[in-house]
Amino acid sequence: MTDLLRALKERLGEAGVLTAHADTDAYCHDWRGLYHGRARAVIRPADTASVADAVRLCAKHGAQLVPQGGNTSMVGGASVRDDSSEIILSLARMNRVRAIDPIDMTLSVEAGVILKTAQEAAAAAGCLLPLSISAEGSAQIGGILATNAGGNNTVRYGNARELVLGIEAVLPDGSVLSAMRRLRKDNTGYSLRHLLVGSEGTLGIITAAVLQLAPQPRTIEVALCAVPSPESALTLFTRMRGQDPSAIQAFEYMSGISMGLVTQYIEGATLPLERAAPHYVLIELATARDNANLRTLLESVLAEALEDGCALDAVIAESGAQRAALWKLREEHSEAQKRAGGNVKNDVSVPLSQVPALIARASDACATLIPGIRIAPFGHLGDGNIHFNLIQPEAMARDDFLAREHDIMETVAAIVRDLDGSFSAEHGIGRLKTDMMQTWRGGAELQSMRRIRQAIDPDGLFNPGKLF
Amino acid sequence: MTDLLRALKERLGEAGVLTAHADTDAYCHDWRGLYHGRARAVIRPADTASVADAVRLCAKHGAQLVPQGGNTSMVGGASVRDDSSEIILSLARMNRVRAIDPIDMTLSVEAGVILKTAQEAAAAAGCLLPLSISAEGSAQIGGILATNAGGNNTVRYGNARELVLGIEAVLPDGSVLSAMRRLRKDNTGYSLRHLLVGSEGTLGIITAAVLQLAPQPRTIEVALCAVPSPESALTLFTRMRGQDPSAIQAFEYMSGISMGLVTQYIEGATLPLERAAPHYVLIELATARDNANLRTLLESVLAEALEDGCALDAVIAESGAQRAALWKLREEHSEAQKRAGGNVKNDVSVPLSQVPALIARASDACATLIPGIRIAPFGHLGDGNIHFNLIQPEAMARDDFLAREHDIMETVAAIVRDLDGSFSAEHGIGRLKTDMMQTWRGGAELQSMRRIRQAIDPDGLFNPGKLF
Repeated sequence: MTDLLRALKERLGEAGVLTAHADTDAYCHDWRGLYHGRARAVIRPADTASVADAVRLCAKHGAQLVPQGGNTSMVGGASVRDDSSEIILSLARMNRVRAIDPIDMTLSVEAGVILKTAQEAAAAAGCLLPLSISAEGSAQIGGILATNAGGNNTVRYGNARELVLGIEAVLPDGSVLSAMRRLRKDNTGYSLRHLLVGSEGTLGIITAAVLQLAPQPRTIEVALCAVPSPESALTLFTRMRGQDPSAIQAFEYMSGISMGLVTQYIEGATLPLERAAPHYVLIELATARDNANLRTLLESVLAEALEDGCALDAVIAESGAQRAALWKLREEHSEAQKRAGGNVKNDVSVPLSQVPALIARASDACATLIPGIRIAPFGHLGDGNIHFNLIQPEAMARDDFLAREHDIMETVAAIVRDLDGSFSAEHGIGRLKTDMMQTWRGGAELQSMRRIRQAIDPDGLFNPGKLF
Repeated sequence: MTDLLRALKERLGEAGVLTAHADTDAYCHDWRGLYHGRARAVIRPADTASVADAVRLCAKHGAQLVPQGGNTSMVGGASVRDDSSEIILSLARMNRVRAIDPIDMTLSVEAGVILKTAQEAAAAAGCLLPLSISAEGSAQIGGILATNAGGNNTVRYGNARELVLGIEAVLPDGSVLSAMRRLRKDNTGYSLRHLLVGSEGTLGIITAAVLQLAPQPRTIEVALCAVPSPESALTLFTRMRGQDPSAIQAFEYMSGISMGLVTQYIEGATLPLERAAPHYVLIELATARDNANLRTLLESVLAEALEDGCALDAVIAESGAQRAALWKLREEHSEAQKRAGGNVKNDVSVPLSQVPALIARASDACATLIPGIRIAPFGHLGDGNIHFNLIQPEAMARDDFLAREHDIMETVAAIVRDLDGSFSAEHGIGRLKTDMMQTWRGGAELQSMRRIRQAIDPDGLFNPGKLF
C-alpha cells in the first residue's frame, strides 16, 4: 500500500478506493472491446469536495487520473493503460439530481447521474431533457458532457453542449470551478463551460451541470419513407426544414443494405412498406401545441414527394406502438450490423449539401477497395452526420476484413476531408483517433489546444494520452 | 516615423496606416462617450494575410493592438488609452461576404461586414440571419462575435455564439487559426470557436466566420399586452412557451415608466391601448409555415390571460405597418431615456423565475437610495435579461445624479448577485466592468481565464486592460 492509496482511503473511506484486481477489472475494459488496461486503483468519491481532495492528493504524488462515467465511450475515452499506473476516478457515486425548476426549465444534476434517470426526472416535472443517445441507459451526464454527445434530436436541440447553462468541475490543481449558473445570457469572460464540454476529461473533471430543458411534446408524428437516392432524402429534409425547422425532432437516413440487415437479423423488425428500397428516411415531427397541424404538414410534404418522385413510398405511424415499431427499424442498425459480421465504423460529418456526394463517393471507393464489401451507412442526415459503416463481404474471413480497418478508414477519411467534413462528428477522439488530430487539426488549432492544456494541466495529470 | 510604422506602411500601403490625429481621432472615442483616447496609429488591413503580417510586426516591436469593428461597444471594448501607445486594428476593410449556401443554410462573412449587410445577404438567398441588435446598422460581425452579442431574438435562436459554426482568427503569435467549417457536428478537440466568441479580442482577432442561417418566417404575429405585474408578464411567457417555445421570436418586457417616456419624447409613438398600464410585454410569434395557426395560438393565450386577470388589455397587429408601430414602442426606449435626462444602465440577467423578484427588489432599493429616481426597466424577459435602467429625478441636477452612478450600480448588483444573476448579460466587460470580474468570477474561474490568456497571449499584446 503506497502513501497515496493510504491517504485516499483515509479521505474517501475503504469503499471509496478499490485496489483488488477483481474490483477494478470491470472499469478497465471499454465496452467496444478495443482497450483492455489495468488501473492502479479505482476511486469513487461521493461529492465534489471529495473529488477535489482526491485530485489534490494525486497531484501531490504525481499520479495520473482517468475520469470515468458510464464507460460507454466509442473511442476509448475512459480507458487506462495496462501498466497499472493510472487511477480511475469514477463519478458513479455522484448521482444526485440537485434541483429542477419548471419555470426556469433547468435541471441541476451531478456527473454520475445516468442520462435515462435525468430524462425521467425532467419528465416527472413535465419537461423534456432533449438529449437521447443509444447508450442512455448507462451513459452518465459527466461523460456525456465531456464528449459533447450528439444523438437523434441534435437536429432540433443541438448537441449536449447547447443544453449546458452551468457547470461545476474540479481542475488539475484541485480547485473547484463553480459556475452552476441558470442564466440564458451571461457575457462575463471566456466561456469556460464550452471549453470543458468536449474536452474529454483533459482540462477538468465535470462534477455537475445545469441543463436547459424544453416543454414536453404533446403531438408527435413519425413517418418512414422510401426514397430513390440520398439526393431525394436531402430534398425531403430541406422541404421540411423550409416549412418548420423547429418541428423536426429527428431526420434519420438509412441505407437499403443496412435496413435489410435489420429486417434479416432483428426479431420482430419488419418493413411496413410494399417493397424494399435503396434508401430510407425516418422523420419525426413534434410540438408541445395541440393545434399545430403537424399531421397536415407531414402529409403535404410526403404527398408532394410521392407526386414528383422524390419519395417511392411512405407510411405514417397511427399509434404509439406503430411509432415505436418505426423507431425500432432505426435503432437496431448497430446491433444488426454487429450480427452480420466484422464491421468498420466511421462517425463522420460533412456540410449538409455534401451528404449525397459523401455517400456516392465513399461507396464507390470502398467497393473498389474491397469487392463485395457491404456498404451500410445510416445516421443523422439533418446534421450531415453519417455513420458510414462497412461490413465484411459474406465470403471473407472476419479477421482478414478487420485487418483492412485502417485502409477503409483512410479511404473514407480522404473523401470526407475533400468535402470539408470532420473525422469525428459525435464520438470524439479518445484514444482511438489521436493520430488523426495532427493531420486534421494541425497548425494553429492544435497548437492552441496544446497551449491551453499545458496552461490548465501543466503536469499532464488528467486523462493522459487522450485527445492529442 | 518609427521602424514599426514604416514596416506597417510597407506591408499595408499608405492608405492602410493612419497616423495623423485628424484621421485617427474618430476611432479613439467610443460612441457612448465614456472613453476618449489617443492611438499611435490605426491600421486597416484588407485581408487575413495582412492582419497576420501586421500582428507579427507589432509583436516583434512589442506594440499592443486594440481590434476594432463598428466601435459600438457599450462597455468601451474597443477603446484605447490616451497615451498614444496602442495601435487600433480596424477590420472595416475586411468586408466581403465570402459565400452563402441555401442548402447548408450557412453564410461565410468577413469580420468587417456590417450586421445589416449580412442580414441582407441572407435575405437575398431566401434565408434569415437570426441576429438583431440596436446597433445593427454599424456593428460589424467580428465585434459582434467577440462580444457574443444578444438582442431581441435570442429567446428563440440564442446569442451570436449559437450561430457560429466556423471561425477564422489571427492569434497573438501571428498564426492564423483557420476553422471555417460548415459542420453542425464536429467533436475534434477543444471548441476554440466558443473560446474566441465572447473573448473580446483578447485571445485572437476574428477575421471571418461561418454563421448558421434559418428559414425566413412567412407568418408573423405581433401583440402588445398591458399586464398588472412582472409576475403576470412571466406567466404569460411560460404559458406561451408551454405551447410552442420555437414560435416565440421575441418576448420583451417594458415598464410603464419607460413606456411613458417613449410616448412623451418620441415623435409618432402612441400607445394603441385605452389607458397606460404599469407594465407591458411585446410578443412576436413567427413561423416559416403557412398553416401553423399562430394567430389562433396567440389569441387563445391572450384570451385566457384577459379572462383570468393575467393581462389588462392587448392589441394584435393587423398589418406590417401596425407591427412596425408596436416594435417602435419597444425600440425607442434607449432614445427616450436619453432625452429624459441622466441615466444609469444595468445590463443584468437573472434566472427567468427571478425576474419579478429582481424588478421588485431593485425598484425598492433604488427608490430608497435616491427618492424621486425614475425606475425604467425594460428588456428581454424571455432570456431573464433586463436592462434595469434608472433615470434622474426630474428635480435633480444631471451631474449630481450621475455622481451616484457607482452607488446605483452597486445597489442593483447586490440584488442581482443574491438572485444568482449576472452583472453583464449581453454587453460584455470591456473596460467598464473589469473591476467587477474579481468579485463575481474570482477563484478558479478567473484563475483559469488568466492562465488561458497568458498561454495564448504571453506578452499581453491583444486588447490590454480589457476583460480582466
